Amino acid sequence: MVSSAIAFAERALPEYSNLVSQNASDTIQMAGGFPDPLLFPVKEVLEAVQHLTYTQGSSLMQYDNPRGFEPLIDLVSNQLSNSDKCRMDNVLLTHGAQQGLDIISKLLLDAGDTIIVEAPSFHGALWVFKAAGASIIDVPIDEQGMKIDELEDLLHNLKEKNLRPKFIYTVPTFHNPTGYTLSLDRRHELIKLAQKYEVLVIEDIPYSELWYDQQPPPTLFELGGADTVIQLGSFSKTLCPSLRTGWIAGSTDVIRKATHFKHIADTCSSSLLQQIVYTLCKEGYLDQNITRAREMYKRKRDTLVSGLHELANDFDGVVNSVPGGGFFTWLKLSEGMSAELLKQVAAEEGVLIAPSSMFYVNGHIDNACRLTYSYPSEVDIQEGVNRLAKAIARISIQ
Amino acid sequence: MVSSAIAFAERALPEYSNLVSQNASDTIQMAGGFPDPLLFPVKEVLEAVQHLTYTQGSSLMQYDNPRGFEPLIDLVSNQLSNSDKCRMDNVLLTHGAQQGLDIISKLLLDAGDTIIVEAPSFHGALWVFKAAGASIIDVPIDEQGMKIDELEDLLHNLKEKNLRPKFIYTVPTFHNPTGYTLSLDRRHELIKLAQKYEVLVIEDIPYSELWYDQQPPPTLFELGGADTVIQLGSFSKTLCPSLRTGWIAGSTDVIRKATHFKHIADTCSSSLLQQIVYTLCKEGYLDQNITRAREMYKRKRDTLVSGLHELANDFDGVVNSVPGGGFFTWLKLSEGMSAELLKQVAAEEGVLIAPSSMFYVNGHIDNACRLTYSYPSEVDIQEGVNRLAKAIARISIQ
Repeated sequence: MVSSAIAFAERALPEYSNLVSQNASDTIQMAGGFPDPLLFPVKEVLEAVQHLTYTQGSSLMQYDNPRGFEPLIDLVSNQLSNSDKCRMDNVLLTHGAQQGLDIISKLLLDAGDTIIVEAPSFHGALWVFKAAGASIIDVPIDEQGMKIDELEDLLHNLKEKNLRPKFIYTVPTFHNPTGYTLSLDRRHELIKLAQKYEVLVIEDIPYSELWYDQQPPPTLFELGGADTVIQLGSFSKTLCPSLRTGWIAGSTDVIRKATHFKHIADTCSSSLLQQIVYTLCKEGYLDQNITRAREMYKRKRDTLVSGLHELANDFDGVVNSVPGGGFFTWLKLSEGMSAELLKQVAAEEGVLIAPSSMFYVNGHIDNACRLTYSYPSEVDIQEGVNRLAKAIARISIQ
Repeated sequence: MVSSAIAFAERALPEYSNLVSQNASDTIQMAGGFPDPLLFPVKEVLEAVQHLTYTQGSSLMQYDNPRGFEPLIDLVSNQLSNSDKCRMDNVLLTHGAQQGLDIISKLLLDAGDTIIVEAPSFHGALWVFKAAGASIIDVPIDEQGMKIDELEDLLHNLKEKNLRPKFIYTVPTFHNPTGYTLSLDRRHELIKLAQKYEVLVIEDIPYSELWYDQQPPPTLFELGGADTVIQLGSFSKTLCPSLRTGWIAGSTDVIRKATHFKHIADTCSSSLLQQIVYTLCKEGYLDQNITRAREMYKRKRDTLVSGLHELANDFDGVVNSVPGGGFFTWLKLSEGMSAELLKQVAAEEGVLIAPSSMFYVNGHIDNACRLTYSYPSEVDIQEGVNRLAKAIARISIQ
């Protein structure tokens, strides 16, 4: 008998092969969500390690508590709330936000459980939920984020069938893959619905600090509190991925149980990495780097968006969103054009893109693609758009 | 409805609370399997980071391939076989060996699947298998390791019921918790049975390099090959835990699928940590440290074992194994004595021990405890035995 998990892996493997291979040649990487290496704290990490090895010695190298390095837990919990709503026992540190998804999935999901996601949705979350055997229902989003009226209809219908979803998963701020942000009004409505129907909200906000025009609305965790919302966050995009540090914020009960699943998942996170992150935060480097990142990514976003507008003018029907922050924009293709085919032809032209099928539960929507402006340089973004234009032209001729 | 996973966490949480808190006071830690901090490569990690930041720069800080840092995969695969049996695509790097357990469990287990473990068995593995909803059957071990005749009877009986276990999980070398090692004869028999009944063997060998008297027999992976055996290994005990680097070795098919589960578990391991591990291996530090560790832990083992022999003389019926390597010895208590009670009284006397109930599937065996000699100093080991003697005396009087 083939395990359902293996069967899933068989299906899923081809889908992400081009996201995980980095730029080896002159191919332009606009598929994977990699941060810009120019923002990485190379010197600062070395200085932190020098400082820590002299002051902490071998305690840097031992197993840590599975909850994480306590001063960093304290720092994260203080940053998450403007009141005393979030205390230390509301936070668990994880090996990146993806581990947060895996832990929450283990904690909350049994095979067959119903959950609600956005359409489209972050593929890394969909993979976790599918592997857990969840029954996934999606609700469309528009430029204001998840369509709350459709969510309400869905919750109402499910309740009539006596079905209570385990949670609603959302990337409300600079959404992956579209770049859209849930408006303040809809945030309030979402919280109200979650409380009315007694459904948890999982808020995944790896990009929320990276805003380029105006500060986004308060987080769902701030609005709804730990009894309604579980927040997943990360330092991967504001410091760097290889420090592998993120967090889960939730009720003390959720965090206590999640700590057990963190323990069985990998014993603990690295003391060394967590103490480096703590040092970079405490010494003000994180804030400086966020300021630098906002300036750099804003320029890159503007470069990509203006290039895409020209492209859209040339190819009737091609439109795009203007993301207020984060790493991604979303290019809707003209009627009848296949994003899967465009991905292949674009790769031949030397630019990698992520087709929309990756981001839908059933993989059936093939008319858009995610374009990432975070990793390539501005020159490469311009060249990437040129190559994409050539690929679109080739497809249009066929 | 309460999720089965949550219900499991509720039950499991109290069991490990005293393993994860480190030595804060003058309490002597003989419960958790912590390596000796004197063996940690503090200076060498700093030197590696200096070297790497100058030579690799920002590439140290980016997302890595989910399979792991390729030169380290190559190095591990070369060390695992004395022939060409193990190639690079037989190895996946993990965030410690515990993550290997979690990934293998996700890959192979559906709820209700039957698996076979040793009695007693490593608690961290039992937690993972229980959380996956496995039906766990245990086979006793003695000083020669898992009792192969009992395993054969079990496999035969299961086959009659048309039940094929998904795998046999074993810590064959310096077993956790008992310290026993599976003999060469039994290794051959185990492989033969696994092949006859078409059952995978999961070999967990975090301690196998740490032998103190004579080199242990070849690994099951070496004897049975990647089609029969999946090996889980780790650098946590030979370098240090906070580098969080272990491996899964298996067939190319297992590794390909396991890579997907690694990806959804936490995206990737840290480039920085894996490159530090690679540097320490390549420059000969790992081999030097293993030599040092063997000398240091041998002395500690001798100190504990001779202390326990005196204790056994004083308290009729108390016996113990002499582990040939690893971190643990196993103290069987005299008739009617409760290890759970001893744990509590010993903690009052200032020494932490791990009661046998933690290491059994049903937690029903309460007549032994695991004593760890790896973390405390020799002086502390002697004092720990004194405190344990006081605790045993108090229990005996009651």
